[in-house]
Amino acid sequence: MMVDRRERIERLLQAEELRREDLEELQPYDVAVVLPDLEPERQIRLLILLPPDVAAGALEHLDADDQYAFLVERLPVNTTHAVLAAMSTAALVDLLKALHPRQQQAVLRLVPPADVEDVRALMAYPEGSAASRMTTEYLAVRAQWSADQVIRHFRHVGRDVEIAHYVYVVDRAGKLIGVTSLRDVLLAEPEMPVADFMHASVVSVQATADQEEAARILRDYDFGALPVVDAEERLVGVLGVDDVLDVAEEEATEDIQKGASVVPLDTTYSRASVWSLYYRRVGWLAILVLLNLFSSAVIAAYSSTLAAVLSLAFFIPLLIGSGGNAGSQSATLMIRALATQDVRPSQWATAFAKEVAVGALLGLTLGALSALLGVFRGGWGEAGWTLGLVVGITMVAIVVVANLIGMTLPFLLSRFKLDPAVASSPLITTIADATGLLIYFSIAAWLFGIG
Amino acid sequence: MMVDRRERIERLLQAEELRREDLEELQPYDVAVVLPDLEPERQIRLLILLPPDVAAGALEHLDADDQYAFLVERLPVNTTHAVLAAMSTAALVDLLKALHPRQQQAVLRLVPPADVEDVRALMAYPEGSAASRMTTEYLAVRAQWSADQVIRHFRHVGRDVEIAHYVYVVDRAGKLIGVTSLRDVLLAEPEMPVADFMHASVVSVQATADQEEAARILRDYDFGALPVVDAEERLVGVLGVDDVLDVAEEEATEDIQKGASVVPLDTTYSRASVWSLYYRRVGWLAILVLLNLFSSAVIAAYSSTLAAVLSLAFFIPLLIGSGGNAGSQSATLMIRALATQDVRPSQWATAFAKEVAVGALLGLTLGALSALLGVFRGGWGEAGWTLGLVVGITMVAIVVVANLIGMTLPFLLSRFKLDPAVASSPLITTIADATGLLIYFSIAAWLFGIG
Repeated sequence: MMVDRRERIERLLQAEELRREDLEELQPYDVAVVLPDLEPERQIRLLILLPPDVAAGALEHLDADDQYAFLVERLPVNTTHAVLAAMSTAALVDLLKALHPRQQQAVLRLVPPADVEDVRALMAYPEGSAASRMTTEYLAVRAQWSADQVIRHFRHVGRDVEIAHYVYVVDRAGKLIGVTSLRDVLLAEPEMPVADFMHASVVSVQATADQEEAARILRDYDFGALPVVDAEERLVGVLGVDDVLDVAEEEATEDIQKGASVVPLDTTYSRASVWSLYYRRVGWLAILVLLNLFSSAVIAAYSSTLAAVLSLAFFIPLLIGSGGNAGSQSATLMIRALATQDVRPSQWATAFAKEVAVGALLGLTLGALSALLGVFRGGWGEAGWTLGLVVGITMVAIVVVANLIGMTLPFLLSRFKLDPAVASSPLITTIADATGLLIYFSIAAWLFGIG
Repeated sequence: MMVDRRERIERLLQAEELRREDLEELQPYDVAVVLPDLEPERQIRLLILLPPDVAAGALEHLDADDQYAFLVERLPVNTTHAVLAAMSTAALVDLLKALHPRQQQAVLRLVPPADVEDVRALMAYPEGSAASRMTTEYLAVRAQWSADQVIRHFRHVGRDVEIAHYVYVVDRAGKLIGVTSLRDVLLAEPEMPVADFMHASVVSVQATADQEEAARILRDYDFGALPVVDAEERLVGVLGVDDVLDVAEEEATEDIQKGASVVPLDTTYSRASVWSLYYRRVGWLAILVLLNLFSSAVIAAYSSTLAAVLSLAFFIPLLIGSGGNAGSQSATLMIRALATQDVRPSQWATAFAKEVAVGALLGLTLGALSALLGVFRGGWGEAGWTLGLVVGITMVAIVVVANLIGMTLPFLLSRFKLDPAVASSPLITTIADATGLLIYFSIAAWLFGIG
């Protein structure tokens, strides 16, 4: 169905003549998807003919460089004026932040002077804060206004607001004192003052709070938008749930990349350059090489044991690999549980007890499996049984220990105010390798009576 | 700030006397958080005194078992009637799906007869479909109605709708033919027919489509809600963006768990039992143990090489570990890029070329680093230089190969319509181990002239 839609739009935009009534039905996102495939002249013609709010919405989906080229270099100035006036302040801020200061100036000269101040105020908020994604185009009224007065006000300004279904109530100082919805305003008696039907207990977020906190509040409370207030509880903007959906996806991508010891990309994979991919991956890999020296040292220390029973080497990948796998599992489960606040850092003991039990069950299962493999490889004589015993016991010990290392490290990191996601699968695997080898050779030296 | 709020609400609910005007200001989520900590009698008293829509909203946040206990066993029947009438059909469906058929009957007997049919229709949609999360409480009007007529209709039914800011336009057969917003209705001339200002080109989703597809459309188009239609394009419900926010978090959690070879939990970590955690982890761990036999076989095959140069063993964890780490990185980047549709399965060649370059750079860096470590460990004599050479060359080869395995496997899986996320870090690590050992011992046997 989505494919049909795409094809229909492509046909429409590649038709000989662009008809204004067809264009009015277009969605900004569809335009943004098809635009890059059009011939340069047709791109310009399309953006000129589109309603400015659709053109603005389409440009918002493009790269900052492409937006800049259209707005400053390619479109006629009156189209640019109209498009920039129709663009949301949040989108404008996103664009400006991605541009060189000289390019910023070129864009700002084309923005309606009334908006420039809003834009500058928004740009002052730190990246990643709740305020950095908010819109300043919302509906604010006073508590003593009647429902009918609010509707008349809405008919006057409603076309320009971005968050249209919530109505925020502020006092003389701009302090947020209530919230209601367009629905409740319409359902109220026309002469009833807003104070009588608004919610006076408003859930809001501080402008400087992390955008992830805002996303969490929106999700927990099932709100469609969240007011953003300054330290004096004055309303400074509103964050829509649609903006937060992007935040949620970006945060998940970051968490997933961190889980594989990749420094989160600042763009999508397809746009990232070879050098930036290299740069964001090599650091952790090099650190892990150095950490792996512990594993080398353990093997070197036990080289006489290894020389005496060379078949011990056969099981090195199996044993340390299984420890790494179990540790990755528990670390990943714990990092995600902490990130979604399913488990609090204070609940370490409960999680530890659970993982002792889970680790023991996993260790016994894998231990039995690998003891069999040990006997199988070592032959059915005494040496084979001893090898099976060594491998089996080692597996139990390694899985239990690696599992607990995996679950504990994220808690430790969060305890020291570090990002639990640093306990990535590769880091856990590397730590589990060294620990596993130590366990393996100690048990082997003891059971074979060497060392 | 959120903590203050929680404390205030706890004080309010633990006060000697519960005041109705205080309770009206409560958010359902806040009630749900505090409710479990109250004494049983006070829980009942609170739910009786709360406005039914707040009580219903609060219950929606609880476990199905707790909801059932309150609704069927603990609350007086008139409160249950009022709460169930106020509960959204989507929440009711979620609750019923989690209950035993006999419990379902007990709840359904208490639901207003008018809602029972809606609920049964929703329950027929498959789990995970767009329709399974939609609401049937939306606003539908006819194209020939005037704006004023819509407003009068809204004043009549608006209290019961869940999606209040969009107005859907259907024809006589129920087919979705347009969409507009409460805002546009208010801004239109009162006598203007809806047909004159509605959007006739509506983006919708099929009822049977995956909820992830619905989430993607909502995110791409920045909509607040998405109409759900059947095969004949008839409007059957509406999916709100707030419902999809939960979907996004759940999907991310699943992807993250799959990335560590854990079968996704059907509940949160904190609620999962030890057995269910064991069960969802042991399968992959056992499969990986069996895959690890290839590594054992490689070492066994080269045991004479190893016996001749025992110090080769020192570098096993370092070399195969680094391959696994690089492979995990590229697999994870690729799985996420495919999941977010940043990279399409057809773009395999582009991604492959990129990873050849990135892998070569990473390999050369880590190769140089580990060659130094090899020389350092082997001494500055000829044997040391050879060992350094072997380790360095092997590292380059292993990192390049493992990196390409990691990036290719997700593509192959998606090619065969399998889930790319199966290419988890532990699986890639295990495959990289065996491949890495083969590369290592071939190069060593060749350069040391043994084998």
